[in-house]
Amino acid sequence: MSDAPAAAPLVAALPQSRPFVAPEELARRAGRAALVRLGANESAFGAPPAALAAMRAELERTSWYGDPESMDLREALAARHGCAVENITVGAGIDDLLGLAVRGYLAPGDAAVATYGSYPTYAYHVTGYGAKLETVPYKSDGAIDLAALVARAHATNARHVYLANPDNPSGAFAAADDVRALADLLPPDALLVLDEAYGDFVAPRDLLPEAVHPRIVRMRTFSKAYGLAGARIGYCLADPSVIATFAKIRLQFGVSRTAQIGALAALGEGAFVENVVAEVAHGRAEYLALGKRLGLRTLPSHTNFVCFDIGSRLRAEGMVEALLARGVFVRKPGAPPLDGHIRVTVGTASQRAEFAQHFAEALAALDANPVSCP
Amino acid sequence: MSDAPAAAPLVAALPQSRPFVAPEELARRAGRAALVRLGANESAFGAPPAALAAMRAELERTSWYGDPESMDLREALAARHGCAVENITVGAGIDDLLGLAVRGYLAPGDAAVATYGSYPTYAYHVTGYGAKLETVPYKSDGAIDLAALVARAHATNARHVYLANPDNPSGAFAAADDVRALADLLPPDALLVLDEAYGDFVAPRDLLPEAVHPRIVRMRTFSKAYGLAGARIGYCLADPSVIATFAKIRLQFGVSRTAQIGALAALGEGAFVENVVAEVAHGRAEYLALGKRLGLRTLPSHTNFVCFDIGSRLRAEGMVEALLARGVFVRKPGAPPLDGHIRVTVGTASQRAEFAQHFAEALAALDANPVSCP
Repeated sequence: MSDAPAAAPLVAALPQSRPFVAPEELARRAGRAALVRLGANESAFGAPPAALAAMRAELERTSWYGDPESMDLREALAARHGCAVENITVGAGIDDLLGLAVRGYLAPGDAAVATYGSYPTYAYHVTGYGAKLETVPYKSDGAIDLAALVARAHATNARHVYLANPDNPSGAFAAADDVRALADLLPPDALLVLDEAYGDFVAPRDLLPEAVHPRIVRMRTFSKAYGLAGARIGYCLADPSVIATFAKIRLQFGVSRTAQIGALAALGEGAFVENVVAEVAHGRAEYLALGKRLGLRTLPSHTNFVCFDIGSRLRAEGMVEALLARGVFVRKPGAPPLDGHIRVTVGTASQRAEFAQHFAEALAALDANPVSCP
Repeated sequence: MSDAPAAAPLVAALPQSRPFVAPEELARRAGRAALVRLGANESAFGAPPAALAAMRAELERTSWYGDPESMDLREALAARHGCAVENITVGAGIDDLLGLAVRGYLAPGDAAVATYGSYPTYAYHVTGYGAKLETVPYKSDGAIDLAALVARAHATNARHVYLANPDNPSGAFAAADDVRALADLLPPDALLVLDEAYGDFVAPRDLLPEAVHPRIVRMRTFSKAYGLAGARIGYCLADPSVIATFAKIRLQFGVSRTAQIGALAALGEGAFVENVVAEVAHGRAEYLALGKRLGLRTLPSHTNFVCFDIGSRLRAEGMVEALLARGVFVRKPGAPPLDGHIRVTVGTASQRAEFAQHFAEALAALDANPVSCP
């Protein structure tokens, strides 16, 4: 026992859990200096050169705090989305914004509905703030069951429904009309938390055309197609009342100055990002062909990753370990019906080739020495 | 009225407040592109060259997430402080860590004790999480009233006592033995939140020698003497049970990769930081002499700023506005008995000279046209 004071009851009751074990920690465990990083859905194609140049040029002013209002960036985002700066909060990535949405709109005990096995950090926040996570399963093909989300929201009087669209880890995508219908069908007190981290990999015409819907908090990030994951910056679009709520509780100086500068410059790099999206589509097609060649089903993906069906949870766990032992970092979905898959980020052409070779060899080894049931 | 769902009751009841209006916003209001930044206690002496070089070299890997465990940095910090990595949490500045301390150890309604008018972001978190801020005044000379903090903590059954040491905005400092005595005299359920943001400006021998005390969560930052304010990175030292509590609720990927790299490199720049501390001491002495020359009392300061006594709240407000109109950003303490002061960061020699001239002129103008009482 420690002489330190006890934590607040709500926090004391939380499990000692965390949403992710990072590749740095996996590398340390595996005794490797570095891994081929295909597990965190980072961009293998880097940040836009203009963003890097802008960050580099301003680095010497790192002794200044960044603007806590991120006003230059919000003005650029407002122009891009055709909304007002009062519709935008900038945060240290979507993880940060999810925390604000949970803290701002869920009281302890309130219900939040999400798909079982979808993005773990949302569940982490819901539990962490004492709310209750209610889940519905993926459809057997990995699609999101929108009707089940609506039904569960009504049955539990939910104040939040979470939809990652495109979804992580399945890669599934719901069309704009279906998303709007979902928002409109929710209980009147419920907010739709729409996590569009992978939205840049979908054709803009397929996303909700309206930037702001009163029942939706729409979250975007610079971590994926824009290649700024390490800078920690994202934003949300929402009704001004939601943004005003976030302003009461957000960490004012949570976003680094460098990140704001990089994101602003990245917004002007449309051609670079389009090229990344095209490269990712090409790599995704390569992964689908690889799956076919290896006799593995793949899930259709609208993101920068693809899930390969390894057959069972145990086999998928074995595959993650086998790839790690070979220096390749991938992840696997944690919950059925997807827990027999591994999720592999689209890498560069050379990373994909490296992965394909290790994957084929590891698969052959797994088939030669099947994992036994516990 | 909006069609958006209502916020959670605790958050809905919060005022639409924020701890700070940033210099960027003040510059926009004043119609200026930039200000002489002497209001946010940033380092006028920049970041250590080795930190800038390390950040520059790694910028192209900004597409990778940073290590959520900040393990390389925590190992270096553990070695420096003679403790274990299990005694350290890295966060996006002390603001972030204060939020963890409040959320982790204060339930809604719990009392937290602080000095009235001390660092506003602590109060922001306490109120924001539904706890109750109990305050004691500064002594008339701007010193922290440690005995009053203890008495108030017992009277209110407080779970937190906050001490900024050195203090912001007064600049006052309590000796190590007094801080330890404070911790030991608190109610057994109370944590001493020891904000040492300005600790680097004090001789190491005057700080608590033990890195970890079971009743203290000790917070340090790279924002001040280390010149990395814009990177957003700080850390706390505490009992492993406190660190484990924070691990249940912290934003895993809240600290940027660049910040971790910069902080790690900055730790090796002891000579640079010592030079900054010496420059700051020199500038502080200059400010004291300036006050004397202008016939203004100054508060003794152990930080990188000095408070000048302008005589009254209204006069101090007038001075902040007058300096802003001249392109110089300073702040003023918000609460009596210090609200008749302005707080001025130690700038470079040329910034100090610029400030001295504007200050003298603005003071003469203020004396010629006294602010009337409301």
